[in-house]
Amino acid sequence: MSASEQPGAVMAGEMAEQPDVLRRILDEGAGPIRETARAVAARRPRFVLLSARGTSDNAALYAKYLLEIRRGLPCGLASMSTVTAYGARPDLTDVLMITVSQSGGSPDLVASTRAAREAGAVTLAVTNSPDSPLAAVCEFHIDVLAGPERALPATKTYTATLLALYLFVEGLAEGDGTAAAGLPGLAERVLGRQDEVRSLAARYRFAERMVLTSRGYGYPTAKEAALKLMETSYVPALAYSGADLLHGPLAMVDNISPVVAVVPDGRGGEALRPVLDRLRGRGADLCVVGHEAAVLGASAGFVLPTAGVAEEVQPILEILPLQLLAYEVTIARGQDPDAPRALAKVTETS
Amino acid sequence: MSASEQPGAVMAGEMAEQPDVLRRILDEGAGPIRETARAVAARRPRFVLLSARGTSDNAALYAKYLLEIRRGLPCGLASMSTVTAYGARPDLTDVLMITVSQSGGSPDLVASTRAAREAGAVTLAVTNSPDSPLAAVCEFHIDVLAGPERALPATKTYTATLLALYLFVEGLAEGDGTAAAGLPGLAERVLGRQDEVRSLAARYRFAERMVLTSRGYGYPTAKEAALKLMETSYVPALAYSGADLLHGPLAMVDNISPVVAVVPDGRGGEALRPVLDRLRGRGADLCVVGHEAAVLGASAGFVLPTAGVAEEVQPILEILPLQLLAYEVTIARGQDPDAPRALAKVTETS
Repeated sequence: MSASEQPGAVMAGEMAEQPDVLRRILDEGAGPIRETARAVAARRPRFVLLSARGTSDNAALYAKYLLEIRRGLPCGLASMSTVTAYGARPDLTDVLMITVSQSGGSPDLVASTRAAREAGAVTLAVTNSPDSPLAAVCEFHIDVLAGPERALPATKTYTATLLALYLFVEGLAEGDGTAAAGLPGLAERVLGRQDEVRSLAARYRFAERMVLTSRGYGYPTAKEAALKLMETSYVPALAYSGADLLHGPLAMVDNISPVVAVVPDGRGGEALRPVLDRLRGRGADLCVVGHEAAVLGASAGFVLPTAGVAEEVQPILEILPLQLLAYEVTIARGQDPDAPRALAKVTETS
Repeated sequence: MSASEQPGAVMAGEMAEQPDVLRRILDEGAGPIRETARAVAARRPRFVLLSARGTSDNAALYAKYLLEIRRGLPCGLASMSTVTAYGARPDLTDVLMITVSQSGGSPDLVASTRAAREAGAVTLAVTNSPDSPLAAVCEFHIDVLAGPERALPATKTYTATLLALYLFVEGLAEGDGTAAAGLPGLAERVLGRQDEVRSLAARYRFAERMVLTSRGYGYPTAKEAALKLMETSYVPALAYSGADLLHGPLAMVDNISPVVAVVPDGRGGEALRPVLDRLRGRGADLCVVGHEAAVLGASAGFVLPTAGVAEEVQPILEILPLQLLAYEVTIARGQDPDAPRALAKVTETS
């Protein structure tokens, strides 16, 4: 059996490439991204709309946190159907529209981005595909340089997109993104601990549902981890920001509901603390992916190397053990992470 | 046993009040709402941020569709932690911040709205509580006139908030919201068909998860229905826009996963059609809440009276059978819809 025929071999290979992809972006991508950021900043956008679906939507949400916190730019996530189904034509003067798509091929993204440009927006495509229709309709384009991705569950394009978006947002204010310098090495260390994740995965072998939560910069990670788990292992995985979890869905959590909390080392993690206390009070089985102190207070966990790592780049590391977890849970269930039923690599929604 | 001691009696009573509440808003609320809309329009906002949690967040999402489609105003849903945890202070000149909260009491909503006002936003509170701290920190306030709500699952405040937001958005362009005139009578007819919903509920007595989907104006309904189901019956209920469902979570749907689709009579419903075909192709058990033709093509459903009802006000009717469904599923499981475990009426997140 060739490596590519083994279940999950393609996804495993692509996850393992991530340190190299991050290194490539820092070495070759950072310069062009900084140039693009400078050109966009010169247009003085006052609002940002982010448009994406699936994994790219989680990357877009990360960019929303960065843009609001680090650049003070109010942001919104676009509801594409307002344009594609209802023909809305908002006035987008002073608006930067960032469309994030691994393939750059989804027709609704292309159509709504073209409409945004016609409506006055400055348009930026962030894709892994410089020759895509999406890149063609945008004024600006950032290539995330992840190389071809063949497994259906996106992994290396996700972390590549996060890093590219981070460098872009820093570049808007002439920042050089030095906080990202150590990420390739740290990613390598995290990915080297697959055995630890395999033990964790045993815990979820028979789980019928999972709840993921975080706050602040870690929230996109919780959403992306839920999507990975669903599209590979088919476990219904529900992601909530810690605050939203308390507004209703908490009722669903009991002592047989596994909860995975992503606890950033920083203000997001601090804001999550009362939520974790409530979860523990309800007898939830709590697994923490995050800094050491948070993991020690939980039923199980995975300690991330966060010392000296700025909170805003931690999401690029946080997702790695959770990608591995989705992979290992799926293998444990006898399924093939490379080929989830019902999915196609380029999703054609219109 | 007094009525209020019977499980679910409070929620049942509040659901039944909805036609009267809608009538009250049209009779007494519409004038003040139109005045408020006129005053806000005079400030010429160019971008709208909506801030809310839980049920109110679903109402805010409805307003986002209205504002984008009917007023051409680009919108974003606020990520409160950027302000409360990270201290972000974006420049909100020309921004209208609409904060939606039944109680108007949640500290993080009050703090982030106050910060928005200080940052230059025009602030509008939409609450069921004119004396609340939230109303006090906002320049403008709309009272949704639902009367005291005692059951933990919000029902009448949801439909009241939708109608108030509809009248507000119409009022921004001097519209009088006549499309809403027939809603109280139609709501009464829908709520009178509880027996039909009880039969539907039997279908979900043993469901271990549910998937809800819709598109366009119906998407907030799918999200709100999922929240109602989770907080009353504790069934993990996942809501996706039809397009997002195809980007990953579809893998989770198989022939034992019940799917409930909200199919608006209009462009949202048309845009959902290919998604429903995919779901049928996967053997999903599909229940449709929507117009008659869509229900006929499904395994089960609830026909809404949509003839002559503008698509943008259909959400005010769509949620009614789904509130009843959450109630009936919960009763069938021997639980009390009035008092979900773990929840408090005013959720204090900070």
